[in-house]
Amino acid sequence: MGSQPLAPGRSASQRALLTREILARATELFGAQGYEKTTLNDIAAAVGISRSALYHYIASKEQLLVMLMDELSRSLDEAVAAMRNTAHTPEDKLRIFVAELVRHRAEHPDPFRLINQSDSTLPDSVRAQHLRARKTVLTELSAVIEEGIGAGVFQTDDVRIAALTVVGMCNWVAWWFTAGKERGAEEIANQVSQAAVDMLRGRGRTPEAWPDAGAAFDSLRLSLDIIERSLKVKEAS
Amino acid sequence: MGSQPLAPGRSASQRALLTREILARATELFGAQGYEKTTLNDIAAAVGISRSALYHYIASKEQLLVMLMDELSRSLDEAVAAMRNTAHTPEDKLRIFVAELVRHRAEHPDPFRLINQSDSTLPDSVRAQHLRARKTVLTELSAVIEEGIGAGVFQTDDVRIAALTVVGMCNWVAWWFTAGKERGAEEIANQVSQAAVDMLRGRGRTPEAWPDAGAAFDSLRLSLDIIERSLKVKEAS
Repeated sequence: MGSQPLAPGRSASQRALLTREILARATELFGAQGYEKTTLNDIAAAVGISRSALYHYIASKEQLLVMLMDELSRSLDEAVAAMRNTAHTPEDKLRIFVAELVRHRAEHPDPFRLINQSDSTLPDSVRAQHLRARKTVLTELSAVIEEGIGAGVFQTDDVRIAALTVVGMCNWVAWWFTAGKERGAEEIANQVSQAAVDMLRGRGRTPEAWPDAGAAFDSLRLSLDIIERSLKVKEAS
Repeated sequence: MGSQPLAPGRSASQRALLTREILARATELFGAQGYEKTTLNDIAAAVGISRSALYHYIASKEQLLVMLMDELSRSLDEAVAAMRNTAHTPEDKLRIFVAELVRHRAEHPDPFRLINQSDSTLPDSVRAQHLRARKTVLTELSAVIEEGIGAGVFQTDDVRIAALTVVGMCNWVAWWFTAGKERGAEEIANQVSQAAVDMLRGRGRTPEAWPDAGAAFDSLRLSLDIIERSLKVKEAS
């Protein structure tokens, strides 16, 4: 450790690079031994610099949590923007938003779990930002589900429960995904987003739960398309 | 605190009652200030007994985690038994298992979050039991999904991802459910279990993803039933 003396006058890009490295090592340590138990000495040692050099980059352990939370908020804003910019139908909006969330959970499980784990012990500012982020996810998902219900493509008993169920699908990825061991993040994002759409389309319900004959006619047309396609495939082969 | 002297000779039922009380207060404290930061003194004070009296009931903080984990394992066994004993079709099995998990997460969010939060810092024996429990949930769900695929009622690209997606729906309830504030646990259990079934029936897929014309004929019959029912309702009114 402390192999190189680190002057405060380093270039901005070097500075950004080392700050990123500090954040990554700290997140690993928080995950492995808990936030409370991790000291700034541990973090400095893991990065390979002295504790006093570390202070050129971060002021406190708490500041690391603030930086992690900022990153989570930024990625959430990107997910919202991706959904709003590229999707038109409620199904596509849901698909894109869920896929973005899943990708993020798969690629950054540690910071996400850390923020959700320490919930009650988070510093006030981080906790407030965390609650805002949770609220944004819920509000955006609820709006898309409402839109789908309005368009007659989604159905659910309670929009809030449905939205939170979708949130659970996405967030839990941070608890089970292991890079390299599982199928790729992209494949998982695709399947989970399709699962969310299937869940909300709810076409598998019993007839009693169907809204009206209109939906049945839609389904009828779809069934006929499938049979027609199936016959054509047979003829062609 | 320490209002009553507690002799080791108390009756078994009194003992069980106080042990349960200790476990409940400890779980609250772990949630509020973190497992690491909570001391046996804090727990004794919250229960209203002295630290030496506490030692008549539990030997260590670690033992409390073991007891919490035992309770989680027991409730999981009950969920598995409920599914196996009462359900016949894959849909009903899935519905019952998911509902049991959701009910449990809604009724005991704190111990469940604690065990999942401290993951890497859990004592070895508790960690091993926790991983076994996670594996049981995944194995049972995967088996039901496979059974449903075999019976032609479920469809999914990857059984493991589908099972973990359902696990996420259930587990996340421990992060958002607040007793009294939300709809009741029973209502949530019903909606989430229906959501899991809808997700796996996946009838909302595009024609390309449908397996064959057989499923389309099933859907056709269902659509005709609905239209017939709808016409009868109109005639009757």
